[in-house]
Amino acid sequence: MIELKENERIDYMLGEQLKIIQDGQSFAFSLDTLLLAYWAKEAIKNRSKVVELCSGNAAASLYMAAFNKAHYDDVELQEDIVSKARRSVELNDMQDRITVHQGNVKDAGSFLRKDSYDVVVVNPPYFKAPAGHKLNPDRSKAIARHELEINLEEIVAVSAGLLKMKGKMFMVHRPERLGEIINYGFKHDLAVKTVQPFVSRRGQDANLVIVEAVRSGKGDGLVLRDAIEVHEADGSNTPAIKEILEAKLPEEKHYFYVLLCSDGSFYGGYTNDLKKRLGAHNSGKGAKYTKSRRPVEMIYLEEYADKRTAMQREYWFKHHDRAWKEKFLHEQGVKF
Amino acid sequence: MIELKENERIDYMLGEQLKIIQDGQSFAFSLDTLLLAYWAKEAIKNRSKVVELCSGNAAASLYMAAFNKAHYDDVELQEDIVSKARRSVELNDMQDRITVHQGNVKDAGSFLRKDSYDVVVVNPPYFKAPAGHKLNPDRSKAIARHELEINLEEIVAVSAGLLKMKGKMFMVHRPERLGEIINYGFKHDLAVKTVQPFVSRRGQDANLVIVEAVRSGKGDGLVLRDAIEVHEADGSNTPAIKEILEAKLPEEKHYFYVLLCSDGSFYGGYTNDLKKRLGAHNSGKGAKYTKSRRPVEMIYLEEYADKRTAMQREYWFKHHDRAWKEKFLHEQGVKF
Repeated sequence: MIELKENERIDYMLGEQLKIIQDGQSFAFSLDTLLLAYWAKEAIKNRSKVVELCSGNAAASLYMAAFNKAHYDDVELQEDIVSKARRSVELNDMQDRITVHQGNVKDAGSFLRKDSYDVVVVNPPYFKAPAGHKLNPDRSKAIARHELEINLEEIVAVSAGLLKMKGKMFMVHRPERLGEIINYGFKHDLAVKTVQPFVSRRGQDANLVIVEAVRSGKGDGLVLRDAIEVHEADGSNTPAIKEILEAKLPEEKHYFYVLLCSDGSFYGGYTNDLKKRLGAHNSGKGAKYTKSRRPVEMIYLEEYADKRTAMQREYWFKHHDRAWKEKFLHEQGVKF
Repeated sequence: MIELKENERIDYMLGEQLKIIQDGQSFAFSLDTLLLAYWAKEAIKNRSKVVELCSGNAAASLYMAAFNKAHYDDVELQEDIVSKARRSVELNDMQDRITVHQGNVKDAGSFLRKDSYDVVVVNPPYFKAPAGHKLNPDRSKAIARHELEINLEEIVAVSAGLLKMKGKMFMVHRPERLGEIINYGFKHDLAVKTVQPFVSRRGQDANLVIVEAVRSGKGDGLVLRDAIEVHEADGSNTPAIKEILEAKLPEEKHYFYVLLCSDGSFYGGYTNDLKKRLGAHNSGKGAKYTKSRRPVEMIYLEEYADKRTAMQREYWFKHHDRAWKEKFLHEQGVKF
């Protein structure tokens, strides 16, 4: 049982598929975080090694982790936020996928392996440390918003250091800082490649950018995307943003199937890709048994949301004799 | 009489107000040049000192010069294009406003005064010098398109050197080079402040940017404008672009007017701003004569497109006696 502290609540992402511990008083994930995760996930493969810097309550990593099997190292300075992140990871049973490190991003090179990551994802503090005393009185919020513990150049330098050659950094930031991001990128060998701006309403100046940069990339191929509009005239989200907010995991389906082989025998199998599997059988690459009994025809199919049940059905079918199989298929209305 | 060479023709800009010598074979001004001039003119005041680098046939300078009284130093390397530019300037009677220098932009610091310009305008070659032999066989076009005689960093450095503190550079370029522009700007003290992207169609990547940079400006305040869409679905220009293409000079009107003073006498005057002039008369700042005869009322008005005629009418009115003036005003249907 995961313990909730005072003022904490559980929110949901990706429909109801992800649970995340939030604190209305001091920390909640924003549209910025969600947009960042949505963009970055496109670059993450199942075998990718990912770092999230300034990872907060791990919202972005949880989101990205739901779309692939990559491993995530999250780095967050603040103890209470790290606690939320770790419990959120547990809530989603992702302890083997997401490791939350408590520490200053500045020092990440000392506890994470340099030159080894495929993707760095970061939602840094947006504002420079103010000269006066204009900080949020909540120190935790102030650290997340202002460059008190780390600044933009340090973040770019650390990101570059962690990435392997051609590894990618995804950063969400305010357009005001875009010049600096590009400049520090040149300085620290992390070339900005793509800039995706967001505008609140069409015709207004951008108020957010997602920047994609490449370790040891060339500096002369920047792609500037057309801005995505966030709000309709009535203040509601545009269809493009709704699509992101309402994104769901690609539904994986699992199948137990029965083939009728050319010699009249049956073959029971499991797959999560029917078309590919049937093609494999008929090209002789599906199974030893079907290779010499082609062509085969799919005569029966059961669909499951989980792999285990589908595989149990296959096992169960295979361990019966011909007479039982014929009876079973007849009962299901299959003609052969 | 301005001489036209073989293949040259005269085109028009700003309605028919500007004539420009073009050569269908080797050089013509583009939408890019026009957009650059349209944006840059907003920053140019009557007393501004402006440099245009890589100025080609002076299209941008002619355009900008039509909107203000600033002085323009154009720098263009290629002799035949300089010849076109100089004759175009003559055609428009702007020899005292636009000086076309033949020379390499690299050396501009040797024949133009450094740290002295308010605005630099530049439409540089867009492409790096190719490694192979993919150059346009027309050397003149190749120089305008490829960085054969000067590269982007040199252009940024020269621009920064010519500008006074807080002077502005306007550059049109392809978004692919935006990273470099920003980076060289940081290096040479010319901070990019505003980026105006253009997209061919909404949702496509930007294919052009106009960049505004400030000498000795701060690097942390970049404004990223929403992209302006250039083409409609049917390929025609969008209203925003049509407005720029069809821009006309602000129409100046000239007036001869007659006031009825509080003592019953008439006062004839000239102005190009009726409201301001009447206000001046009634606040005692318009003329010695009206100051002591307030309030005054405007009872008659003639409008002219040129200043000279309006002033001739004023002179003519003032040199008649009271009886003649009364008769004239009665004939015009004025009651007083």
